[in-house]
Amino acid sequence: MKIEIINIGDELLIGQVVNTNASWMAEQFNLAGFEVVQITAISDTYSHIFEALDLAKIRADAVVVTGGLGPTNDDVTKEALCKYFDTTLVFNEEVHVQVEALFKLRGFKVTEINRKQAELPANCIPLKNIHGTAAGMWFEQDDRIIVSIPGVPFEMKTLVSDEIIPRLLKKSNPGIILNKTILTQGIGESALAEIIQNWEESLPSHFKLAYLPQPGIVRLRLTTKGSDRPKLQNELDEQTRALQRLIPKLIFGYGEDTIEQIVVETLLQKQKTISVAESCTGGYISHLITSISGSSGCFMGSIVAYDNRIKEKMIGVSKETLIKYGAVSEEVVIEMASGVQSRFNTDYAIAVSGIAGPDGGTEDKPVGTTWIAITTPDKKVIAKKYLFGEHRGRNIRKAALTALNMIRKEL
Amino acid sequence: MKIEIINIGDELLIGQVVNTNASWMAEQFNLAGFEVVQITAISDTYSHIFEALDLAKIRADAVVVTGGLGPTNDDVTKEALCKYFDTTLVFNEEVHVQVEALFKLRGFKVTEINRKQAELPANCIPLKNIHGTAAGMWFEQDDRIIVSIPGVPFEMKTLVSDEIIPRLLKKSNPGIILNKTILTQGIGESALAEIIQNWEESLPSHFKLAYLPQPGIVRLRLTTKGSDRPKLQNELDEQTRALQRLIPKLIFGYGEDTIEQIVVETLLQKQKTISVAESCTGGYISHLITSISGSSGCFMGSIVAYDNRIKEKMIGVSKETLIKYGAVSEEVVIEMASGVQSRFNTDYAIAVSGIAGPDGGTEDKPVGTTWIAITTPDKKVIAKKYLFGEHRGRNIRKAALTALNMIRKEL
Repeated sequence: MKIEIINIGDELLIGQVVNTNASWMAEQFNLAGFEVVQITAISDTYSHIFEALDLAKIRADAVVVTGGLGPTNDDVTKEALCKYFDTTLVFNEEVHVQVEALFKLRGFKVTEINRKQAELPANCIPLKNIHGTAAGMWFEQDDRIIVSIPGVPFEMKTLVSDEIIPRLLKKSNPGIILNKTILTQGIGESALAEIIQNWEESLPSHFKLAYLPQPGIVRLRLTTKGSDRPKLQNELDEQTRALQRLIPKLIFGYGEDTIEQIVVETLLQKQKTISVAESCTGGYISHLITSISGSSGCFMGSIVAYDNRIKEKMIGVSKETLIKYGAVSEEVVIEMASGVQSRFNTDYAIAVSGIAGPDGGTEDKPVGTTWIAITTPDKKVIAKKYLFGEHRGRNIRKAALTALNMIRKEL
Repeated sequence: MKIEIINIGDELLIGQVVNTNASWMAEQFNLAGFEVVQITAISDTYSHIFEALDLAKIRADAVVVTGGLGPTNDDVTKEALCKYFDTTLVFNEEVHVQVEALFKLRGFKVTEINRKQAELPANCIPLKNIHGTAAGMWFEQDDRIIVSIPGVPFEMKTLVSDEIIPRLLKKSNPGIILNKTILTQGIGESALAEIIQNWEESLPSHFKLAYLPQPGIVRLRLTTKGSDRPKLQNELDEQTRALQRLIPKLIFGYGEDTIEQIVVETLLQKQKTISVAESCTGGYISHLITSISGSSGCFMGSIVAYDNRIKEKMIGVSKETLIKYGAVSEEVVIEMASGVQSRFNTDYAIAVSGIAGPDGGTEDKPVGTTWIAITTPDKKVIAKKYLFGEHRGRNIRKAALTALNMIRKEL
């Protein structure tokens, strides 16, 4: 089945917003076995919406439209669709009840504008939007499917995953496509490609490998396509195991795993606790850990010791060590890890001190220099020095992921 | 002049790459006064390229095409353009000299493949690519301009800024388009729309208003178009001031401002310091502050007190208060703010305690319930209760932005 994605919104055409919705949707549709033939960003105008729909229906079997469903005047998608299908808006009681419930839960009053959100084109099947007030709308006409959903990313994502893809799969059988995403940390894309070159070249011809680099992480997506599911699954598992044997230390997880999630789950399972002393990462490691629900069962807390006086007073790093070795040093990061471990009385602890940049680098310690220490229940301390890049945001992310991966390896 | 952007590349259609090129180009063209009518991402195939060009020429005066100009087999744009214009490739000595020079500079050998990079369609004007081996190509036919450039971001950017925009400006005198983005915090899209309804309806007809909601923030983009720049700028400033008078407390900034950046800049300017005590936000407020370079000049550090014992031991919240009122209460959050302010010896402090979810809610304190307190240099404490939503990640973000905005208002 061929799919076209249409993203409606002037904000895309003036470049105010990067179209991350399109890439996320394209990835999900491809993973489900569909082909995305075009991604089209257009303006919030009736004529442009009509033209884009007409043309998309020639190229694709299904057209998924995002955006322009808000309650305000600049959002015209719903009215445009009514006109396109020559139908009228009808008040939908079920959607209205759901919008009311959502508003009550948030403590807001339902306004007249919100009541309008429950009016939908007569010919559509409403798709339940559990996160927002604009329902998805599913239309079928001339052997084509047209779906309209909000552009708010997490509303869009739930509607695509829970409603659109399952419904599309019922309409068409795209053949069997199996994917395995293998997650690596601690190596760059080109270095990884060299190490696994022989394995990659020996892959059967119906396999495809894609490198998907992100700051601090390289994802490998292995895709196989065919008609015999058990055989494909077997081959995929075998190739994954072969890769696992080749780079056991670099792989930290699969699919949608995150390092922070694996760390939290393992700690909970082992009934162990953790604390963090952060300098250059500035709270980001704690944020990653606490973004995982249930983390309160293992994460006691942390100290963000940005100023050296806080390193002394709140974590107990000695003034002498700070003066003698500097804040970005093996000695300081070890005292930070041991200090937070004993003060917070946790089984494990992480400490990071580095130069995130763009300022603060020296010849000896250029921007990106980062010391990370971890401690274990038997008070073992492991400290390592890393040299990340020049980009502040990426240095923070790389340092945090590297630190969490150090703990993961010890767990 | 109307422009269409066409991005060629299968990597866009499988969702492997986010189309940041398109948003950057759209912004540049808009700032130059052109209108981007559509952004189209298509596959690396002749037929799709032909179709997209034919359709774009109907919608736009100029079509700017990126991608598919690499030396490898999957890049077909140049050959497709030859066929489209019914012409042939001609070796271009000037481009070849430039490619050779670039390779020598990088210490690479010029290969046969790279020699091919100097072959260009006979009817094009080459645009010099100082950063790479694929020249830009400028075509004119049927009163339309078609430009093809590489998709490598920094090569694309230089070609757009130094070659394409100056040449387009020579061809047409675009009207003036001015934008102002107004940033609001603390109110939802619909509630905001109701408050500013009269102002919005009284906008002159050459003005356009767009609502751009993000978790915790609603951005308003005001656009005006015409020919008299000073007059337009005047009107835009006037309308912005009228809005500022209408919702002074809701506006925290303009354009690319972020709350954390404004807070850090104001603190630095006033030579004041800040510390944070975080429970449900789990380090995210500290992360936002420390994502701003230079924040070490005002941010001393923070305590992430996830466990109640840490609230007691490290911030000095009394056991009695915790037992009597619970961790998510006005009393506790006030003690947290005062505690971290005095222990970290800072001018300002922020404290947040809430139920981020998805678990931990009760009838009295449902998921999303959040207490925020801030303290000022004169030890004034302001505490407020908020009810955010059900989504953990969004609750964390909303609480953090709301807390930072409370401090911003006091600064």
